[in-house]
Amino acid sequence: MATDEQIAIAEDSQLGGAHSVGLVQTQSWTFGDPPLELDCGRTLSPVTQAYETYGELSAARDNAILIFHALSGDAHVAGYHTPEDRKPGWWDIMVGPGKAFDTDKYMIICANVIGGCSGSTGPASTHPDRGEPYGLDFPMVTVGDMARAQKRLVEHLGIERLLAVTGGSMGGMLALDWAVRYPQSTASVLAIATSARMNAQGIAFNEVGRQAIMADPEWRGGAYYGQSFPSAGLAIARMVGHITYLSEEQMRAKFGRRLQDRDVFGYDFETEFQVESYLRYQGSRFVERFDANSYLYITKAIDYFDLTNGHRSLVEAMEHVRSEFLVVSFSSDWLYPTAESKEIVQALQANAVPTTFIDIPNAYGHDAFLLPNEPFAEAVRSFLAHVQQRERGER
Amino acid sequence: MATDEQIAIAEDSQLGGAHSVGLVQTQSWTFGDPPLELDCGRTLSPVTQAYETYGELSAARDNAILIFHALSGDAHVAGYHTPEDRKPGWWDIMVGPGKAFDTDKYMIICANVIGGCSGSTGPASTHPDRGEPYGLDFPMVTVGDMARAQKRLVEHLGIERLLAVTGGSMGGMLALDWAVRYPQSTASVLAIATSARMNAQGIAFNEVGRQAIMADPEWRGGAYYGQSFPSAGLAIARMVGHITYLSEEQMRAKFGRRLQDRDVFGYDFETEFQVESYLRYQGSRFVERFDANSYLYITKAIDYFDLTNGHRSLVEAMEHVRSEFLVVSFSSDWLYPTAESKEIVQALQANAVPTTFIDIPNAYGHDAFLLPNEPFAEAVRSFLAHVQQRERGER
Repeated sequence: MATDEQIAIAEDSQLGGAHSVGLVQTQSWTFGDPPLELDCGRTLSPVTQAYETYGELSAARDNAILIFHALSGDAHVAGYHTPEDRKPGWWDIMVGPGKAFDTDKYMIICANVIGGCSGSTGPASTHPDRGEPYGLDFPMVTVGDMARAQKRLVEHLGIERLLAVTGGSMGGMLALDWAVRYPQSTASVLAIATSARMNAQGIAFNEVGRQAIMADPEWRGGAYYGQSFPSAGLAIARMVGHITYLSEEQMRAKFGRRLQDRDVFGYDFETEFQVESYLRYQGSRFVERFDANSYLYITKAIDYFDLTNGHRSLVEAMEHVRSEFLVVSFSSDWLYPTAESKEIVQALQANAVPTTFIDIPNAYGHDAFLLPNEPFAEAVRSFLAHVQQRERGER
Repeated sequence: MATDEQIAIAEDSQLGGAHSVGLVQTQSWTFGDPPLELDCGRTLSPVTQAYETYGELSAARDNAILIFHALSGDAHVAGYHTPEDRKPGWWDIMVGPGKAFDTDKYMIICANVIGGCSGSTGPASTHPDRGEPYGLDFPMVTVGDMARAQKRLVEHLGIERLLAVTGGSMGGMLALDWAVRYPQSTASVLAIATSARMNAQGIAFNEVGRQAIMADPEWRGGAYYGQSFPSAGLAIARMVGHITYLSEEQMRAKFGRRLQDRDVFGYDFETEFQVESYLRYQGSRFVERFDANSYLYITKAIDYFDLTNGHRSLVEAMEHVRSEFLVVSFSSDWLYPTAESKEIVQALQANAVPTTFIDIPNAYGHDAFLLPNEPFAEAVRSFLAHVQQRERGER
């Protein structure tokens, strides 16, 4: 979700003596039997998951960290795919040699979620029986389904217990789900800018995005593959999303009421304000890299997410959690507000789960977790060092 | 912007011993010569303005109050058009015999803004030379243009000096503009849930709405009159708007994560959550009563609004203000936040303008000004009584 400008800032930063993981490749693994059982009652097979790994797995297989990406992310967390790449992976500021997620110490894994469009099985994948893209025949997937698919991948990689699972936004939801679903499988959880359930306002914004996509005649009920793409609808969905990723304070500082390439009002419906230009640009870039149906499926997965589903309370939902927690919120994040992180912390504490909570004062809104921030990086670094020490001491 | 439910609450309330103004009629007045000169450099003629009045103008012509409506409002503030009407005008809770804007004491005037679609000249009106609707040939209008048009109407009604001008949201912008533009023409200003300039986030949301309308192929570059209507685009614009009119707290209380007409997830793209159902309903109802081009023009007018345009500061912009002010904000309004009302208050105070400011603790977000609220009603009532007393004492 970071902007070009943010990425440029990030690339320039030498956060924590940062170096790059260098050239990396996306890998792929497919399983089919048994098929993946989904929360909706259907099954999915075959299931391909695109993933990347950086750093070496220790002989004791005790230093692996699974990173989950957010709505529009992918498996490419850090480094470059080609020497010509202008931009590194989406969390390059945090992942690499000497960085917060230190690839000299840890093995990092990140997989594209199922339902996605960056190498994992999703609505654009070929239906095994029909020989053409699933489209809306793709089954609805949940955050729990995404987690179950990635558990199979982690086992395939020969890892029984992770040092940590982590992610921001939807990635944080996956980390929370994992901690509840597989209590013994991770020593720790870093839940960042996330929530134990999507709130009504968040569902509302996602629904507007979906309606914009489905209202685009090019969408054709989801069967647009091989034809024109519902660019206009997906761009509008992205524009709505982007507003929610930034704080009002940041928008004011970044754009205010400044005009784009003009000194006076044009009194027309062309781009006039910088904020309009920014949003249109974000929308137009997004449609080059993201599938409209994946946007529908992944936003639905986010909306369905509620850790208390099937439980009487969040405290009860978390009663079997055995991992140590770092919970991080950012003060100006109004999409996943600090109060929702505190709710997670309270439920963890009620279950006597060792928990560290930091709310980072910050003007950058929800996107803050993707931007350079030394207190955040340092909290991650020291938490991981502590967890690794504890794990190795206990064995 | 009030919902059906809110209106039902409002109708049930007996706020201030409320009675209705009863059956009312929208009237209409047209001027053509001289034409209306617009900020964009073009002129508009003829200019029709639909308006309603309630209460009697005093012999001294000193008891008239001009109410400005918000984005989606119209001239029909209070009462009913027919005995069969289910719903009264948009501010019936505040305007009527014995109510805050007491029609036993004051003459109330409200006109549909130019650019609108409820009887005043706008993009759906017939172009005088072409004999067909303006569409996008309609000139861009500003808040200042709307105010200038209404000044002509007020003069036509024989009123030289108003007791008050008032409005919420865009209506508040019109009231602020009026106070600066015609300092001697109103004894007081009630600026409600408004701002001296639209902020970047507000422009961003408006831009998403406009893009949704213009992306609808039925929009046809604005030339859709007599053909199918860009309903899908306008509905999406309205959905985005509605989210910004409610607070997150209110959405949580009103909808939370409750499902609509189901007990379990449907795992499909139909309406699942109540908040989705609510938004879709709001969108679908809006397209029955509002013109898509008017939505484009009026949101642009809002975005252009900045009282400091042509001045070095807000303090300087307000240096000729001679009216007494009541500024009202609502604590959970994040579209026109309290801080922006305070900015108005500070600029007024720097100019030694007598100003009363109240921030009303309230969970209803921006829409709060349309809902029953006794502290708000009482503040309006006592402010108007004070202003009238002062005016009559001074004469």
